[in-house]
Amino acid sequence: MTTFPEHLAERVDATGSGLCVGLDPRFDWLPKFTLPTAMSDQAMLDARIAAYERFCHGVIEAVADLCPAVKPQIAFFEQLGPKALLAFERICCAARRRGLAVIVDAKRSDISTTAEAYAESFFPKIESGRRPFCDALTVNPFFGRDGLEPFIKTARSSDAGLFILVKTSNPSSAELQDLSTPDGTVSEVVADLIAKLEPITEGPYGLIGAVVGATQTHVIPKLRRRMPRSWFLLPGVGAQGGTMADAAMAFDAEGHGALVNVSRSVLFPWRTTKDATVPTYWQDAVRAAAICERDLLRDALRASSR
Amino acid sequence: MTTFPEHLAERVDATGSGLCVGLDPRFDWLPKFTLPTAMSDQAMLDARIAAYERFCHGVIEAVADLCPAVKPQIAFFEQLGPKALLAFERICCAARRRGLAVIVDAKRSDISTTAEAYAESFFPKIESGRRPFCDALTVNPFFGRDGLEPFIKTARSSDAGLFILVKTSNPSSAELQDLSTPDGTVSEVVADLIAKLEPITEGPYGLIGAVVGATQTHVIPKLRRRMPRSWFLLPGVGAQGGTMADAAMAFDAEGHGALVNVSRSVLFPWRTTKDATVPTYWQDAVRAAAICERDLLRDALRASSR
Repeated sequence: MTTFPEHLAERVDATGSGLCVGLDPRFDWLPKFTLPTAMSDQAMLDARIAAYERFCHGVIEAVADLCPAVKPQIAFFEQLGPKALLAFERICCAARRRGLAVIVDAKRSDISTTAEAYAESFFPKIESGRRPFCDALTVNPFFGRDGLEPFIKTARSSDAGLFILVKTSNPSSAELQDLSTPDGTVSEVVADLIAKLEPITEGPYGLIGAVVGATQTHVIPKLRRRMPRSWFLLPGVGAQGGTMADAAMAFDAEGHGALVNVSRSVLFPWRTTKDATVPTYWQDAVRAAAICERDLLRDALRASSR
Repeated sequence: MTTFPEHLAERVDATGSGLCVGLDPRFDWLPKFTLPTAMSDQAMLDARIAAYERFCHGVIEAVADLCPAVKPQIAFFEQLGPKALLAFERICCAARRRGLAVIVDAKRSDISTTAEAYAESFFPKIESGRRPFCDALTVNPFFGRDGLEPFIKTARSSDAGLFILVKTSNPSSAELQDLSTPDGTVSEVVADLIAKLEPITEGPYGLIGAVVGATQTHVIPKLRRRMPRSWFLLPGVGAQGGTMADAAMAFDAEGHGALVNVSRSVLFPWRTTKDATVPTYWQDAVRAAAICERDLLRDALRASSR
């Protein structure tokens, strides 16, 4: 079977793109899913779940050939309760059927049998009665190696991948992650831990990736040196201020080893123009925005390789 | 309405106990829930969910008057898929109806609208169509204040509480959390952040609690000084090597300000004796184990106040 890093490399080549589209539905920003005003709370909740599902399926159809991966954000589904998680799994499965690698953004963290339970939530065992629905998972490293090893073990036996938070894109990430310690910053300690825990496998990249904010330009090259075998997942381009040129630093000469996550600019392109009306052919607008981001990243990679 | 810290103090007084019972079902350890061997995977999954629900309801009945709080671990339910989360919410609601404070152990972390979505997953807004099911939530602080403020805001408007990971009970927690920085260890930086972010309210304790492993005896008094207004949630007594005497350091003279979490010793008492058979009256065994833990904690608190 194909391992996660191999799968990702294949998809990058097939799509000619290092883009990851975040699937982050926000109810107020959705196109055309207007609801009757006098619904019961339960009917409204069901209608929201249905709207999220239609929207995410529509985005997947619009971008499937333009990017190697999507990153569905589970928080927006958990917000709507357990029934929404059935829709979440259906969305993930639909993305996989379209050839997309599915990176579930859930930022889980725990130790021991609890961490194993989380890992098996996303990478269910064959005998569990649940079907597989994703290829990789984001994980928070605060517990140290006890909090990473159970996820690594389960991901490995499922040919899946992980993206560990190393340096996040938010302004206050400095408060903890940039603190200097005798072994480097906290982020650098996490990076060294990832490099140490990566199982020895063939191929240029391993199964443990790293989340590194594209806003963190001062640290991307340093972290790349410490984690030469990690796929980087780079959030923070666009709304948060990172640029494709910043993100390009994390890629190798083949355009592998990194994915730039874009969410709002692709999902809700009508919100950033002066014309706030949602176009009737909203999927065309999503597709056009994804093509634009893909080309911006291509140009940045070309410029950086010069 | 009663705030979370007030609610907790009332329950501690009513039960005369600082115990928090973890609701961590593990299928192989459950009593008497034998299953037919030739079930389909889906039927087996449903049977597991039903077994978790019966078990947790049984534990709640057995311990409700012996402790102020329970801590259901969501990972074990996520492991069984979305349908299990409906059972999870029913279990939480049942515990609340019995007067127990429900601390959901989910260790969530994110920023911005995503963190708000997580917070509203556990503290749903009235207009959301979902019913409230818990009183407090555990949160991972790796993002810094951007990752805490959305949870605090939502908890505050719901009169709910939070328990932020400060120093976890696992051996490798030292790898990140004990690193020394110019402002103290990473845990101490988190503790100072909690003290700074705590909204000004009446009463001795605020809404932002702290998870501090009872195994971390060297740091409990130091962290208490840095977070004088935080309820401490102390895991790690028993299986992980912490003692009630260690945990007692975190309590005030009234027996408030801290909860000792016990899971395995109370949930599966038959596993620690030589006789591995599950007693027919398994709820009596659970109740006896909870009484034993409650009395051990009482004795430790008496000894430490001398």
